Amino acid sequence: MIRVLKIGGSILTDKSREFAPREEEITRVAKEIAIHPDDVVLVHGAGSFGHIPAKKYGLPHVFNRQGLRVTHSCVARLCEMVVLALSHAGVDCLPVHPLSCLHLRGGRIDSFFMDPIEEMLKNGIMPVLHGDVAMDATGKAAIVSGDQLVAYIAKSLQADVVAIGSNVDGVLFSGRPLSRITRKELSRVESAIGGSEGVDVTGGMRGKLLELLDLADLGIESMIFNAGIKGNITRALKGEYVGTRIERDK
Amino acid sequence: MIRVLKIGGSILTDKSREFAPREEEITRVAKEIAIHPDDVVLVHGAGSFGHIPAKKYGLPHVFNRQGLRVTHSCVARLCEMVVLALSHAGVDCLPVHPLSCLHLRGGRIDSFFMDPIEEMLKNGIMPVLHGDVAMDATGKAAIVSGDQLVAYIAKSLQADVVAIGSNVDGVLFSGRPLSRITRKELSRVESAIGGSEGVDVTGGMRGKLLELLDLADLGIESMIFNAGIKGNITRALKGEYVGTRIERDK
Repeated sequence: MIRVLKIGGSILTDKSREFAPREEEITRVAKEIAIHPDDVVLVHGAGSFGHIPAKKYGLPHVFNRQGLRVTHSCVARLCEMVVLALSHAGVDCLPVHPLSCLHLRGGRIDSFFMDPIEEMLKNGIMPVLHGDVAMDATGKAAIVSGDQLVAYIAKSLQADVVAIGSNVDGVLFSGRPLSRITRKELSRVESAIGGSEGVDVTGGMRGKLLELLDLADLGIESMIFNAGIKGNITRALKGEYVGTRIERDK
Repeated sequence: MIRVLKIGGSILTDKSREFAPREEEITRVAKEIAIHPDDVVLVHGAGSFGHIPAKKYGLPHVFNRQGLRVTHSCVARLCEMVVLALSHAGVDCLPVHPLSCLHLRGGRIDSFFMDPIEEMLKNGIMPVLHGDVAMDATGKAAIVSGDQLVAYIAKSLQADVVAIGSNVDGVLFSGRPLSRITRKELSRVESAIGGSEGVDVTGGMRGKLLELLDLADLGIESMIFNAGIKGNITRALKGEYVGTRIERDK
């Protein structure tokens, strides 16, 4: 049972401050993942390690080579912390950096070399990816969000569970999480959707939903849930629906 | 003019001690590269950052997941130092980690996703790769040496200059560097070839030569030179032959 789990940058970092990891949360998340670690691909958001340097250098609007380097270096540092926490929790894992293994075209994944990820899964190793800067065929500086990575990987591996851990209880309507949403329902409730807090250059909740609705169209359902609530990650990895389920229109 | 430059781990680190970067040498190497940085792919050896943890965990003979993680983390740390030194010397560069972008079969590169590297070169960014652990289709733990990377990349990009910077003056015969060597000449002088000093799990000088002789068979000549001698890197990047030239039999 292949499971793709995203943990949002808002859980792992203080998004309002530069290089501010939430170390206790990283440890807690790692311990929850360690309960059902098999066949999991983990994607984590960049949080303040990505969004703040990206904004500082004008990415993705300005092609700033130094900005690409600094931003990648920061998110790779966060990834190293996550990998280390997982390892301390007993999970065998390895980092996989999108900058090294995929190529964008106009900001969308054009090609993605999945062989190392598949080989890791075969060998009981959890691949750990993250939102990252990446090269783009249009010659622009580009950012690939964790949400786009999740959708691509889930499709490519035909994942059985796709769980997007955010810092809200799901897709909110009048302050309360919807139990399910489809593309048609989205247009109805769109004006009322709650967004992520803090700086987020990758589109927040709307971006997440659009990625996941595309995935649902392909027959792969997913969920957006609150990974800040203890126990939710473990439940999600078991395939229990927590938060909002993203489905296709029947 | 595409140039593939390898800088051996023996230049950048003290191979006899764990985590012992030669910081002055890293700075000096970066400054030399900065004189002709265009269209260069840099590959650096792992030095003590790779060979010591690999040996400690029994890699590549034992499939040790923790060993893979720790060894990769160490070599990535050395790569970050090299990238930072290059950046300080004014070179726009980005790290590319073999663990993320290639797949081995029986210890040899089976597939290698080169798109990000090519896109970086197009955009005036120097890709910086390194000897690394990598996933292997045979399910074994595996190591990909900087020398194997150089040969693959040089072939793939049809490089004009291929320069392997070591800590010796080239391929030595009776203590003196040969100006050129071919496959036939190798068998003649083989018993007298000087090897790299210290711990080197990737085969030392003989491994280097075999990679480069295969490359020469494809019509791509290369050189092994002493990168510890000031000025040699700059000369090699200009396409001047320093050290020993590796050619095919006529």
